Amino acid sequence: MTCLVVIGLGLIGGSIAKKCRELKLFNKVIGIDNNQDVGKIALNCGAIDEFSLNLSICVQADVIIVATPVMVINKIFTQLSKLPIDAIISDVGSVKQSVITSAKVLDNQFSNFVPAHPIAGSEQSGITAADSNLFINHQVIITPTKDTDNKACNFIADLWRKLGAQVAIMDAKNHDQILAATSHLPHLLAFTLVDCLAKNDESLQIFNYAAGGFRDFTRIAGSDSKMWHDIFLTNKEQLLNVLDGFTYNLHEFKQAIINEDSNFLIEHLNNAQGARKYFAEILAQRNKQ
Amino acid sequence: MTCLVVIGLGLIGGSIAKKCRELKLFNKVIGIDNNQDVGKIALNCGAIDEFSLNLSICVQADVIIVATPVMVINKIFTQLSKLPIDAIISDVGSVKQSVITSAKVLDNQFSNFVPAHPIAGSEQSGITAADSNLFINHQVIITPTKDTDNKACNFIADLWRKLGAQVAIMDAKNHDQILAATSHLPHLLAFTLVDCLAKNDESLQIFNYAAGGFRDFTRIAGSDSKMWHDIFLTNKEQLLNVLDGFTYNLHEFKQAIINEDSNFLIEHLNNAQGARKYFAEILAQRNKQ
Repeated sequence: MTCLVVIGLGLIGGSIAKKCRELKLFNKVIGIDNNQDVGKIALNCGAIDEFSLNLSICVQADVIIVATPVMVINKIFTQLSKLPIDAIISDVGSVKQSVITSAKVLDNQFSNFVPAHPIAGSEQSGITAADSNLFINHQVIITPTKDTDNKACNFIADLWRKLGAQVAIMDAKNHDQILAATSHLPHLLAFTLVDCLAKNDESLQIFNYAAGGFRDFTRIAGSDSKMWHDIFLTNKEQLLNVLDGFTYNLHEFKQAIINEDSNFLIEHLNNAQGARKYFAEILAQRNKQ
Repeated sequence: MTCLVVIGLGLIGGSIAKKCRELKLFNKVIGIDNNQDVGKIALNCGAIDEFSLNLSICVQADVIIVATPVMVINKIFTQLSKLPIDAIISDVGSVKQSVITSAKVLDNQFSNFVPAHPIAGSEQSGITAADSNLFINHQVIITPTKDTDNKACNFIADLWRKLGAQVAIMDAKNHDQILAATSHLPHLLAFTLVDCLAKNDESLQIFNYAAGGFRDFTRIAGSDSKMWHDIFLTNKEQLLNVLDGFTYNLHEFKQAIINEDSNFLIEHLNNAQGARKYFAEILAQRNKQ
């Protein structure tokens, strides 16, 4: 395999390109972005060998990784479908069903498309945050369809393992349900809370007296807004589903507070505390691997 | 001032006692707790000079700091009011109006009561987590009433400064409103989310594929459940008030997702992202001081 093209040089795309160059996994790493300045930074920091504003350079590619916000991936697939491409195509989108649907435009290249999602974001964004060690000990979920070529799938899985990640294979719908719960809903809640408090007349005082708990809880509200807009809209069904469950639970807690129902509160607070400790153990074990 | 009594040897009480001993601010530091084992640990780790299960030892005190969960403070004030005490009394409760109301039982000692709240918790709890540097660069809010003795208030403010904290003076109602927004609501949301996900049929998979964003967002759901039960119930009015604002905002976000209202989403996500960055700057400046 000789030529990798990464489309979209943000945190994830930039980090993939950087690590692939460091490890010399390809003869050439080409970066594409709609922002020339981003290209200059990517060249300067050694993330890519060559930069282009134009998708037509993809005809050189053996492997293409699309690393743009989810709703931009649609448009890129349409453009790629018009080029004479013979490459393994993959993506890094946080929502998988909608990406797979839009990949169908690739037509006879669809079997070479391997849907993938590295669970390794951060509230930082952009090429300046690119970090070649970003994926070490992080998980990448690959969600092949029944049409996905096995060799292409294995190639992408191996590539992620070389970047330090642990690979899991999963059905796209299952992926979207799980990510709605663990990532998309928490982001929605953090964005909603910070937006709500910022509108408060006392917002200055509020931020002034907030401490570590608030800092951690709201860290993800500093994330890229275009990226999260796209995720909320493309994973709408699963997100609304898990949001309804949360809203019901929140209503129950509210009623328990109104009624001063200590038994309910202690039971459910203990339940949450126990589950959070269990989760911390899972994370600690994973980091040891 | 010669004798400090700390009632309740948890994370906060233990950390206060430890630092006061390290700095030799008192001739003697006595710890009271309803758990003998906690007393042994506090003696072994050098947090206290002497341990007692019995509040009557408070007659020796020049300064008493009550560091139990908020709803226990009520009972302690009632017991203290029956003892011949001549001391400055303070507390560390996360809710101030309810503590002040229950302190009125102290009667002619009420003017010696200085309500205080160090904003320096953690999801860790108990004497084993006690840390003499816990308060450095953290804020302590003191909420004196019109009856509070000036000298007592200044003494407690100075004591906190010696422990490394920054002291702010504020009205108790204002304190309870601000803390409802920055601390009590985020804790309620984190507990609710983790409780909700733990009940999900796919909870094992959910926790397995969760990453750093989820870890930070839910860290506070690992906090002490008895302590948070008490906070939710004693700051009920302010908490329900800020919860209503949040619920309204969340409903607006939900409608925008249903209607695919990109303008609303981008505006409010940008607003939250900007406010979160502003908050991060405040925190960074404070840590430089």
